[in-house]
Amino acid sequence: MAKDIPYKTYLSEKEIPRKWYNVTADMPNKPQPPLHPGTKQPAQASDFQAIFPDALIAQEMSPQRYIDIPEEVSELYRLYRPSPMCRAYMLEKALGTPAHIYYKYEGNNPSGSHKLNTSIPQAYYNKQQGLKRLATETGAGQWGTALSVACALFGLGCSVYMVRVSYEQKPYRRIVMQTYGADVTPSPSNKTNAGRAILAKDPDCPGSLGIAISEAVEDAASHDDTNYSLGSVLNHVLLHQSVIGEEALLQFEKIGEYPDIVIGCCGGGSNFGGTMSPFLRENLTKGKKTRLIAVEPTACPSLTRGRFTYDFGDASGYTPLMPMYTLGNGFIPSKIHAGGLRYHADSPIISQLYKDKLIEAQAVGQKSVFEAAMMFALHEIIIPAPESAHAIRTAIDEALKCKKTGEEKVIMFTLSGHGNFDMTAYDMYLSGKMDNEGVSEEVLQKGFGTIPKL
Amino acid sequence: MAKDIPYKTYLSEKEIPRKWYNVTADMPNKPQPPLHPGTKQPAQASDFQAIFPDALIAQEMSPQRYIDIPEEVSELYRLYRPSPMCRAYMLEKALGTPAHIYYKYEGNNPSGSHKLNTSIPQAYYNKQQGLKRLATETGAGQWGTALSVACALFGLGCSVYMVRVSYEQKPYRRIVMQTYGADVTPSPSNKTNAGRAILAKDPDCPGSLGIAISEAVEDAASHDDTNYSLGSVLNHVLLHQSVIGEEALLQFEKIGEYPDIVIGCCGGGSNFGGTMSPFLRENLTKGKKTRLIAVEPTACPSLTRGRFTYDFGDASGYTPLMPMYTLGNGFIPSKIHAGGLRYHADSPIISQLYKDKLIEAQAVGQKSVFEAAMMFALHEIIIPAPESAHAIRTAIDEALKCKKTGEEKVIMFTLSGHGNFDMTAYDMYLSGKMDNEGVSEEVLQKGFGTIPKL
Repeated sequence: MAKDIPYKTYLSEKEIPRKWYNVTADMPNKPQPPLHPGTKQPAQASDFQAIFPDALIAQEMSPQRYIDIPEEVSELYRLYRPSPMCRAYMLEKALGTPAHIYYKYEGNNPSGSHKLNTSIPQAYYNKQQGLKRLATETGAGQWGTALSVACALFGLGCSVYMVRVSYEQKPYRRIVMQTYGADVTPSPSNKTNAGRAILAKDPDCPGSLGIAISEAVEDAASHDDTNYSLGSVLNHVLLHQSVIGEEALLQFEKIGEYPDIVIGCCGGGSNFGGTMSPFLRENLTKGKKTRLIAVEPTACPSLTRGRFTYDFGDASGYTPLMPMYTLGNGFIPSKIHAGGLRYHADSPIISQLYKDKLIEAQAVGQKSVFEAAMMFALHEIIIPAPESAHAIRTAIDEALKCKKTGEEKVIMFTLSGHGNFDMTAYDMYLSGKMDNEGVSEEVLQKGFGTIPKL
Repeated sequence: MAKDIPYKTYLSEKEIPRKWYNVTADMPNKPQPPLHPGTKQPAQASDFQAIFPDALIAQEMSPQRYIDIPEEVSELYRLYRPSPMCRAYMLEKALGTPAHIYYKYEGNNPSGSHKLNTSIPQAYYNKQQGLKRLATETGAGQWGTALSVACALFGLGCSVYMVRVSYEQKPYRRIVMQTYGADVTPSPSNKTNAGRAILAKDPDCPGSLGIAISEAVEDAASHDDTNYSLGSVLNHVLLHQSVIGEEALLQFEKIGEYPDIVIGCCGGGSNFGGTMSPFLRENLTKGKKTRLIAVEPTACPSLTRGRFTYDFGDASGYTPLMPMYTLGNGFIPSKIHAGGLRYHADSPIISQLYKDKLIEAQAVGQKSVFEAAMMFALHEIIIPAPESAHAIRTAIDEALKCKKTGEEKVIMFTLSGHGNFDMTAYDMYLSGKMDNEGVSEEVLQKGFGTIPKL
């Protein structure tokens, strides 16, 4: 093993990016604008003011290539960044591949995932504008945890609508959020009209991400001191996550390599978007030819089997219509363990890039994902989050191709989170109760039927 | 805030210690030798050969000041070391203290605690000697996890006897160990004579660390291909853990400060021992005057209220008699959440040093420990393990004394683990169901009654 390249490459705190990179500035085709859910006309900044602070709305619509990271946010990034770039020597050896496998480890912080990168600036801008509380939804719990931490740091209240089935199945995640001071409500709840309407029809409703979003948006819209906060999909979220890719670029410079392939798991797109966008910039502006691969579950194949069209971000049609690859806002994926990837659509940025063939996408089955996760755990000794393990699956597959061809490709993926709170999923895998969880044509068609007609 | 000192000081992988430091070499009074449990005569190397490999027995008895870390172990240390030295700027600010608070974060690895530092060399030496399997006990689960990881890395089988009450209350810890390939048995079990004898008397016995040790030792002693592995107490364990303090010294050199106070939580003593021993060396050989404070729970106050005498390490009297501060091998502490500190005695090294007044000890109550843990979580955003939070309590108390006196003392503690698997404890604290859990005179006397007469 070439030990000149360390297992982990860190950066100094002074090398943490001071600017976020806005990939829309370099996109040949910009994402189409969101549409007001009522008028179906392009949404104006004022349409968002009931739930977002001005600074985030401006970032959402900004054409600027770089946006300065406020000093206070940089200061807090130093609490847990930079994140290490790790060389997977042990995994390479186990695979017998000539490929060089690297992973950017974003689970190496107290919230356990990359989500802090955007929850901190979101809490900051809301605090700046005098808001007192943020409302949000959470499924797997990574986003709810990250927002709870950020709100604790800024002395903001935090109300998390947690999909009821997760609330019951993942009590540890609930307690983590409560430890950071959040109030956590199982969704659907009696706190909102959206929740009450659903409970009236089905008192035992297990909830969904779409329902929880509707509740959180309603909570924010109906309280003057409260805003809404979203952990993925939107342009400003991908903007904040660009710190992942920017650090990775700098780390590769120190290492003296450059990736042929960059891989990220993709639900709404915040992890993949933040990881790949600086590499896409290098492709577009410096003639680099890195393959950028989004990996999604076969059970929720929005890029690989979805339609590119306007759709709502939530189940109740409260959000603007966005131009996305979507399976339909009413699409219900099977209960796979990668809760963070169970979203019916993809970020408008990711969607446009995929349409323009500037990025690739793959769908992988749950069982094969856990096989990859186990291989990673046994050799790199980190138990990955089920979401992140999607990227591992593809990285291993690409490394095995190199084994056949003898190519020494440089493969990098982002390990977006650890699996400490996902042990029941591993228990199911270990006891042989897991399968590949595809999606039937019937379920797909039912989902497509919920896409609104314009 | 003085930002010239970074939040986190790392070392390069080349700066990971290449030698372990054996504090017994510099102790003015060496620990008395262990006694054979049958003959009560000083134990010989051969007495340990049924359960330990030769290299570890040699280390256990070595008078050498430094012992080389084998290349293969160094290689694996690089998977997760060096660990960061963190400046607690946010906590300092919240306390309004002029003190400089640092913590060496040993929870920043996949096993979640400092225990990997010794599980890796223990697995290595057993593998070298041709053993096929290691047996051990675990209470809170940190040690069982660390040994599972190490055995996975060396392709050894791993059998963990997990205290039954923990097995039932902490399923996530069990699954983590199983994910790394360990077989995990609730103790007492039907697998051993020790277990069967106890189950015959009490089929519903919830188990204890002492019982689980007896089972693991019996398993190892009765299988030729199997050895026993202990995660604390013994000299070779403290030896391996010296990497914590050695790295810390080097990090302070880079930072340009030197600690006035070094603090560690103390159960068997592996974390405190590994943290303080290089600082003790500097005290003894270079005229430094760092205060070294072991922190234990008031519910299990072996140093502060125990007796210095020979006692068994386990409940069944299988282990050698060791010279320790002990509450009696039959002492049953209340069910505090810091499971890793619920041991009836302290390492012979720690005990001798405490007797010789070269280190200090304090006992703190559970509720005050969780108050400190919450303060740490909200400001430094890491949820600490309940064990580690004992050190935080004392660090905060010392920092508050500095606030009164205006002294800019440098206070360092080891944050030996994260609390991701201890969320039920936080839930109890948050719901107001926790108290300070002392120990009654009656329970103490009952414990003392189990100390064997020589």
